[in-house]
Amino acid sequence: MNYQSIRYLLGWVISVEAGLLVLPVVVALIYGESEGVVFLICAAGAALIGTLLRIRKPANSHIYAKEGFVIVALSWVLLSIIGALPLCISGAIPSYIDSLFEIVSGFTTTGASILRDVESMPNSVLFWRSFSHWIGGMGVLVFMLAILPLAGGYNIHLMRAESPGPSVGKLVPRLRKTAKLLYIMYIVLTVAELLFLLFGGMPLFDSVCTALGTAGTGGFGIKGDSMAGYSVYIQIVVTIFMFLFGVNFTFYYFIINKKWRDAFKMEEVRAYAGIFIAAVVLITANIVIEAGGDIGTSIKDAAFSVSSIMTTTGFSTADFDKWPTLSKTILVIIMFGGACAGSTGGGIKISRIMLYIKQAKVEVMQSIHSRSVYSIKMEGKPVGAKVLQGTNAFLIVYIVIFVLSLMIISWDDFGFTTSFTSVAAMINNIGPGLGMVGPSGNYADFSILSKCVMIMDMLVGRLEIFPILLLFAPVTWKK
Amino acid sequence: MNYQSIRYLLGWVISVEAGLLVLPVVVALIYGESEGVVFLICAAGAALIGTLLRIRKPANSHIYAKEGFVIVALSWVLLSIIGALPLCISGAIPSYIDSLFEIVSGFTTTGASILRDVESMPNSVLFWRSFSHWIGGMGVLVFMLAILPLAGGYNIHLMRAESPGPSVGKLVPRLRKTAKLLYIMYIVLTVAELLFLLFGGMPLFDSVCTALGTAGTGGFGIKGDSMAGYSVYIQIVVTIFMFLFGVNFTFYYFIINKKWRDAFKMEEVRAYAGIFIAAVVLITANIVIEAGGDIGTSIKDAAFSVSSIMTTTGFSTADFDKWPTLSKTILVIIMFGGACAGSTGGGIKISRIMLYIKQAKVEVMQSIHSRSVYSIKMEGKPVGAKVLQGTNAFLIVYIVIFVLSLMIISWDDFGFTTSFTSVAAMINNIGPGLGMVGPSGNYADFSILSKCVMIMDMLVGRLEIFPILLLFAPVTWKK
Repeated sequence: MNYQSIRYLLGWVISVEAGLLVLPVVVALIYGESEGVVFLICAAGAALIGTLLRIRKPANSHIYAKEGFVIVALSWVLLSIIGALPLCISGAIPSYIDSLFEIVSGFTTTGASILRDVESMPNSVLFWRSFSHWIGGMGVLVFMLAILPLAGGYNIHLMRAESPGPSVGKLVPRLRKTAKLLYIMYIVLTVAELLFLLFGGMPLFDSVCTALGTAGTGGFGIKGDSMAGYSVYIQIVVTIFMFLFGVNFTFYYFIINKKWRDAFKMEEVRAYAGIFIAAVVLITANIVIEAGGDIGTSIKDAAFSVSSIMTTTGFSTADFDKWPTLSKTILVIIMFGGACAGSTGGGIKISRIMLYIKQAKVEVMQSIHSRSVYSIKMEGKPVGAKVLQGTNAFLIVYIVIFVLSLMIISWDDFGFTTSFTSVAAMINNIGPGLGMVGPSGNYADFSILSKCVMIMDMLVGRLEIFPILLLFAPVTWKK
Repeated sequence: MNYQSIRYLLGWVISVEAGLLVLPVVVALIYGESEGVVFLICAAGAALIGTLLRIRKPANSHIYAKEGFVIVALSWVLLSIIGALPLCISGAIPSYIDSLFEIVSGFTTTGASILRDVESMPNSVLFWRSFSHWIGGMGVLVFMLAILPLAGGYNIHLMRAESPGPSVGKLVPRLRKTAKLLYIMYIVLTVAELLFLLFGGMPLFDSVCTALGTAGTGGFGIKGDSMAGYSVYIQIVVTIFMFLFGVNFTFYYFIINKKWRDAFKMEEVRAYAGIFIAAVVLITANIVIEAGGDIGTSIKDAAFSVSSIMTTTGFSTADFDKWPTLSKTILVIIMFGGACAGSTGGGIKISRIMLYIKQAKVEVMQSIHSRSVYSIKMEGKPVGAKVLQGTNAFLIVYIVIFVLSLMIISWDDFGFTTSFTSVAAMINNIGPGLGMVGPSGNYADFSILSKCVMIMDMLVGRLEIFPILLLFAPVTWKK
């Protein structure tokens, strides 16, 4: 284990966070909020620790997959531990566990809140929450790879451990250029949404927070009713941008390079769009027929909710907990599928789901024609046995963690629906679930034990299980 | 496709059912019930059709895996279609769909009922329901293999398609002898339970039905409150025997041959016992602490419920729908695990669950030590890649069918908990779920569409998906 490199890179992560913490200070200055001082102190503290950690450069900067996992996992843990401090110290969220829950929910782009009254929060705190979504969405290590002049050794392992999906491809041969490209596309899309929101008459602060929360597919609202109070235009803009941030960014790379055919031939993006349309049609029909909803509003709310849940954002315009069972069930199902790999969305990812279904098909064919050999292709390329094995192991570990979390959380005795959907909302980084944690509810009433489990689940979900899991495996730390 | 052999074997299946239908006629005679005439007519009709179908022997009796699947699937469908007739014609269950639901629930050893008042049913009907559990538990084709002088060609494929578990082993080299051995052990255990029940003062008819329902891990009760009204002694006897019928029968084979060490070294049986004990301890603690239950009764009810749900039997002594969330959640979780492979119990099976967890462990190790090679062992023997692939495909298809069923059933709008647990109860062949389908509820109020989906799910669950799935695959029927 290359401890030197781990220390050095963690030093950089903390230094970067110190830089990020300056932004809420600026917000506090603009709105004349005393919380700015707290953010400033935390930034200074982080800068000091970060600098100390990276004073000595490591002799050997080469890292393996194991170090990659450990660095990414520890980065996210440290990022959260430090990021929670200003929330707690400023008194915005008096309990440290609650502050940690809130900021982990931010960085992991979950968007679940323990705040009962979000509108009473100072703007600097609201901004920090929403900004954490934006950083967490594309990833802080990818950000570092993009902006820092790190020497050659820090490689694909970091990106692989932080980016979602069964197999992480580089857009261009050079890793640093890929990271830069990703952040440029990310910034352009975020700014585009911001402009559309401002154009619709949304106040600047609201627009910034909404754009940051949409981009990271996070979902922290800055109003008690999330997006319900904004105009239909704004709701439609958010629906569209949530959908766009759930698309595999390779799609945009093709678009930029005018490879239209390659872009629109992407299997995963097509499946993603197909599921979106099917879910919207079914839910709209269900609300209109069973609950007598008006067609226009029903389509708008169905599209918003599907886009929000499928991309694991978690904004809401309607309290879908009050919808008929079929609509709720569809939402629970798409909670698990999640968005595309290589997007900022969470969940199991559409491409994994596709690999599962393709494998099952092949197995059925094989059981009939036992002598034929079938291969599995994705985006036109054959998928290796190692990737399939890893994808299957992912599902199994995912289920095991889900079941264990469900058992601990159900100890709180809030009923099966609340327990089940809150675990689903955590591990898939969504935010709202059903029942007590529905769009009009929050996570304040859970026990400290449950909140700790949820914090773990959010990190496990965002980093796709293995980095966090390896942190606890004794074999990782053995010589 | 060897259509001749399919016809011939289906003829035998129907003939065997004709023979089985004579037993309720005897019951009707004893209790002087007019329903006996209906059973007799159905038996005669089945005998006629069965005989006609098997008049001409097939020229070539050799069958492949594909025919094995098709024969087993069609056998179960025919068995159910014919078995439902007396229930409907006698007027006991006026709707044919309801009759079909009830008898499929019987044969698949689910034990879910659409009857609102089971105690008003004639004894011959109650006996037929419970007897269907017993036949379905070990399997009608295994029964045929054991008793009929079928020529050599009808082979392991039939047994493999009907018996549960990831890999079906023969106890002894000759298949027919294995089938016979299985049925002998099955009969001995059933009779043992019957004697224990009679010894406890349970009326003869009740004892017979209870023993048949326990043996098949079915769970149809003949009282409105299932087992709650019987003495503690009887409840304990049933608890123990439910557990015993969920054990892999290879265990008993070892015991008979005095291979004690082999028996008690069986990994699957140990895991099964371990899960049982853990679940009973957790639920007992949860009821005593959260609901203030008395310790003795809590242990008894927890053990009964865990045994009943884990083995997928479905009898009940307490309304666990009223238990705290943790207890309910544990029951929902063990619904999926199910019993051992090679037992009469349903669910995913303990050995599959173990294979999943072992694979995940290996994958975690592999991600750290990418150059090492790990192999997966079960019961001391290495597990082949083909078995693992099949086991993984099973899980995926299982989830797909689960999700599709959940969507259709939730259309009935009975809430998420009821919809989710009723699909779980169907596909795992358990019987009761939570909410409206809890121990004190029934399945009467579901729509016809939902009932049809549930009928499919029960068959899919009992035959472990592939036989039924292949019935609908166009490729099965292509030249």
